[in-house]
Amino acid sequence: MHRTKVRVVEDVLDANDTIARANREDFARAGVTVVNLMSAPGAGKTMLLERALDGLADAGVRAGVLEGDVQGSFDADRLSLLHVPVTQLNTGAGFGGECHLDANMVRSALPSLPLAELDLLVIENVGNLVCPAEFRVGEDARIMVCSVTEGEDKPLKYPLMFRACELVIINKVDLLPHLDFDVERLQANLDQVNPGVDRMLVSARTGESVGAFRAWLAALPGRATVAA
Amino acid sequence: MHRTKVRVVEDVLDANDTIARANREDFARAGVTVVNLMSAPGAGKTMLLERALDGLADAGVRAGVLEGDVQGSFDADRLSLLHVPVTQLNTGAGFGGECHLDANMVRSALPSLPLAELDLLVIENVGNLVCPAEFRVGEDARIMVCSVTEGEDKPLKYPLMFRACELVIINKVDLLPHLDFDVERLQANLDQVNPGVDRMLVSARTGESVGAFRAWLAALPGRATVAA
Repeated sequence: MHRTKVRVVEDVLDANDTIARANREDFARAGVTVVNLMSAPGAGKTMLLERALDGLADAGVRAGVLEGDVQGSFDADRLSLLHVPVTQLNTGAGFGGECHLDANMVRSALPSLPLAELDLLVIENVGNLVCPAEFRVGEDARIMVCSVTEGEDKPLKYPLMFRACELVIINKVDLLPHLDFDVERLQANLDQVNPGVDRMLVSARTGESVGAFRAWLAALPGRATVAA
Repeated sequence: MHRTKVRVVEDVLDANDTIARANREDFARAGVTVVNLMSAPGAGKTMLLERALDGLADAGVRAGVLEGDVQGSFDADRLSLLHVPVTQLNTGAGFGGECHLDANMVRSALPSLPLAELDLLVIENVGNLVCPAEFRVGEDARIMVCSVTEGEDKPLKYPLMFRACELVIINKVDLLPHLDFDVERLQANLDQVNPGVDRMLVSARTGESVGAFRAWLAALPGRATVAA
């Protein structure tokens, strides 16, 4: 039974990877670099995007967002205030809504994306530290946001997520004076599962180091780099 | 295709409910009341248990914990310092580990649980606001913990989770002075998806209102109630 189950799971992931490759080819053909942005619920992905995307146009990078949610369009509504193209993708009914985006969901959104007007597409995944790490969607880079309010142990408890990404944003550092949180311990745990991975200590709320994140994003399409 | 998928999902959930009912009968036969404790990663479930379970024995309630994690035993190790029985349940390999507990996983742990020595079993679920709400495991009550650092919008974005539970713990209220967080707005959003649900504003870190939570737990098995 267990063997059968694993086989089914492998088939699902193989099929997903095939569709993800097709997505990536379509994005590349359109000249759009794609980022898959992941985190636990409430880690601050949306506010981080609100702050980081705001300056990207001045740097010559035309950014858009594909907003993944179980339901509703709360984050898309917030981001649309930035005057960047935002497309909502809901994981929908059945199963109470899927807990992650997969390549096929993103594929279904392709016709709604204004790819010709974009250099960079940020796909904001469903808030979840488990399944989003399993499903490639056609992205060039994966970024995960963790918050200092979540505890230092998260890389060890959700290693696949922290291992899957090219950049780890450690958000809400403005709260550090009010927490029993050891940044060194988090970084040591992070190095245990993804040695030397790029990381940034950021506060989306105060703006601290948001410029560095903006520069990281701006450099991705091989275009202008915003000063950090 | 979509219809077929929904049918498969319904079958999975039907099978889960059947096993959950069998679990619940076994727990009832053993005289054990069971709580399913859910939250996003890092909302503070484990620290809350550390604080709340500590006084339960004095109130005549013998508590134990079934600790669900994708991998590792970090929380179980913390809780075992309380000298309550703690059993680790890992959602294991394949799929990078399941993102939730289901009834069958809990059933597989039954032989390892010292049910004869317990009045109350707290099942700490995998940190996730989506799938754990879909899968009953044989519990009498469901509690979800949200943190004030996660934002007021979470009930609207993850309504099934907030609707599925009998008690909502709003944790980390000691951080309120340092956040742009509107407790009234959270409560209004909560009432929109689960009108009038029991709720408690708690700080596991400072101990604020942990006594009220302990009393809520202690009252569940119909035994002694700890003063709040």
